[in-house]
Amino acid sequence: MEIKVLMIGFGHVGRGFADLLLKKEKILNEQYDLQVKVVGIITRSRGTVIDEKGLDLGKILNTTQAGQPFASTGLPVTDQSTEQLLETLDYDVLVELSITDLQNGEPATSYIKTALMRAKHVITTNKGPVALYLPELRKLSRNKGVQFRFEGTVMAGTPLLNLIHYNLAGLQIRKIQGIVNGSTNYILTRMSQGLSYEDAVSEAKALGYLEADPTADVEGWDAVAKTMILSAAVFKQPLTKEQIRRKGITHLRQEDVKAAEAQGKVWKLIATLEQREKGLLAGVQPELLEKSHPLASVHGATNAVIISTDFLPDVTIVGPGAGEYETGYSVLNDLINLSREIAVP
Amino acid sequence: MEIKVLMIGFGHVGRGFADLLLKKEKILNEQYDLQVKVVGIITRSRGTVIDEKGLDLGKILNTTQAGQPFASTGLPVTDQSTEQLLETLDYDVLVELSITDLQNGEPATSYIKTALMRAKHVITTNKGPVALYLPELRKLSRNKGVQFRFEGTVMAGTPLLNLIHYNLAGLQIRKIQGIVNGSTNYILTRMSQGLSYEDAVSEAKALGYLEADPTADVEGWDAVAKTMILSAAVFKQPLTKEQIRRKGITHLRQEDVKAAEAQGKVWKLIATLEQREKGLLAGVQPELLEKSHPLASVHGATNAVIISTDFLPDVTIVGPGAGEYETGYSVLNDLINLSREIAVP
Repeated sequence: MEIKVLMIGFGHVGRGFADLLLKKEKILNEQYDLQVKVVGIITRSRGTVIDEKGLDLGKILNTTQAGQPFASTGLPVTDQSTEQLLETLDYDVLVELSITDLQNGEPATSYIKTALMRAKHVITTNKGPVALYLPELRKLSRNKGVQFRFEGTVMAGTPLLNLIHYNLAGLQIRKIQGIVNGSTNYILTRMSQGLSYEDAVSEAKALGYLEADPTADVEGWDAVAKTMILSAAVFKQPLTKEQIRRKGITHLRQEDVKAAEAQGKVWKLIATLEQREKGLLAGVQPELLEKSHPLASVHGATNAVIISTDFLPDVTIVGPGAGEYETGYSVLNDLINLSREIAVP
Repeated sequence: MEIKVLMIGFGHVGRGFADLLLKKEKILNEQYDLQVKVVGIITRSRGTVIDEKGLDLGKILNTTQAGQPFASTGLPVTDQSTEQLLETLDYDVLVELSITDLQNGEPATSYIKTALMRAKHVITTNKGPVALYLPELRKLSRNKGVQFRFEGTVMAGTPLLNLIHYNLAGLQIRKIQGIVNGSTNYILTRMSQGLSYEDAVSEAKALGYLEADPTADVEGWDAVAKTMILSAAVFKQPLTKEQIRRKGITHLRQEDVKAAEAQGKVWKLIATLEQREKGLLAGVQPELLEKSHPLASVHGATNAVIISTDFLPDVTIVGPGAGEYETGYSVLNDLINLSREIAVP
């Protein structure tokens, strides 16, 4: 099956996905009967390239590696607007990887809606649209008979949403509890190894785990966005950010971490969603865990989530939570499973 | 979609599966458009019941709970042979849950072949046929255009095979390493808490984690069978049991566990499959792990597996490895995903 992909955004995740498409071309063809053709890449900073016969991803990766705009390299650029391209280009799947905005989800939400309205499948790793508008986007995709997938919005390519969809199908999810922000877990891990909060933050920035302004991570907003996604996607009970109790890690000091250690405990920033009789309990906050707790031994930028259900004892999934290939792979995984479901058996 | 199921075997797993079908009837119908009708249950000790309109599972569960043979309860029994029923009954899916035989995989393998030859889908939790004959059974199922699923043969309902199939699709699996036998992990955990090997074994027997003859578990044969399944299913390189280095836990004594503890380490029975240039390295043996190792903190009868791939950093899945509902759910999960793949989109 040939699938024509239109990409919006070509940052780390877009590049990781494009490189995986190149490196996995043979396996996709032989094992999944899947021929992926990227017919357009729309970016803010480098311009836009389109080719209905499929773009040369190798050349594009080299170009962007060198920091060049598309126009200077002989690639087939266009000055059509994103909306125009979404409306007129011939594609099967929109891969939406533009900048995350957790306040209003734009412009990504509009892009996604435009594609869904045209009955195009959509894959995104963008937390904004999913955290804020999942019920609406899901309804639209169903009405149009297309798929809306977003595995990479939580835990990157580590399967959580697809794990629940495929592997825990039919079970009632009672509770989800975990470490869903890698940079804060990295900071807490380094603090437990003796670093001050400030030094741990500096190190995390130097390693690219934190933005120059680390507020979204260290104040817990990123984990709140993921909790919003899980509340809507898994529990079908969308929550606003105001409905999620939130406390970041900025108040934790080396003394707190040492005091925890002395008690045989460890601080972790934990996101929790629990179905109670009165409704969904949702929160993000630092918690003092016993060292024998399954999340206590999750170190560094790794993510981990414990899923509690009605009939299966707790299942825990541990893996990377961010990164170029890690998140890029989530898009490829969504694409493979999308192609499986639209294939006539 | 209505699916007619023929079951062979009605022990713990069969009962767990049947009870889940009852308890999940509404969800299966509403969320998965799935109506499951069990048209026959074949057992060695209680006889065989068939009803083309669908058996009364509630009544059958009550009957078997009380230890009665089917014949004494007014249920629609038959004295037709298993082979006759497999050949003539109208069913869509064979759920094969008969006793595991790791020497020749019989009679389960013959049952499975008969069903596949008739182009019936097959779901099994029986390690024998999969460990010994997967390539042949897979080929037969492909030729007949039907599915052969066996999630429950490794880690019960904790997703491992389906996780790799759905969630790590397209990635090259380089290494699988884990705790795949819950009873030996229970014994080692209890020994680390001060029990002697003998007392830990007695306790595991009393709790139903070990058979009266614990050889298959404590000598590592059960873990070897699972390693054989993973070698064939995941690496497509079937191995015989002779090709898997094996050492059980019977030589470990309280002193060894204490000595490990003094070094900050812990003994775990680890199954490993690793793709090397020269071929697949496969072994089951007790290993001394650092306490910071992700498998070191897996306690009791829990299973855990670390999956290493070419592009995604290690993903670890932790969950139950045995049990009535735990393994019964694996059958239900296979059935839901089977129905998804045979549905016309």
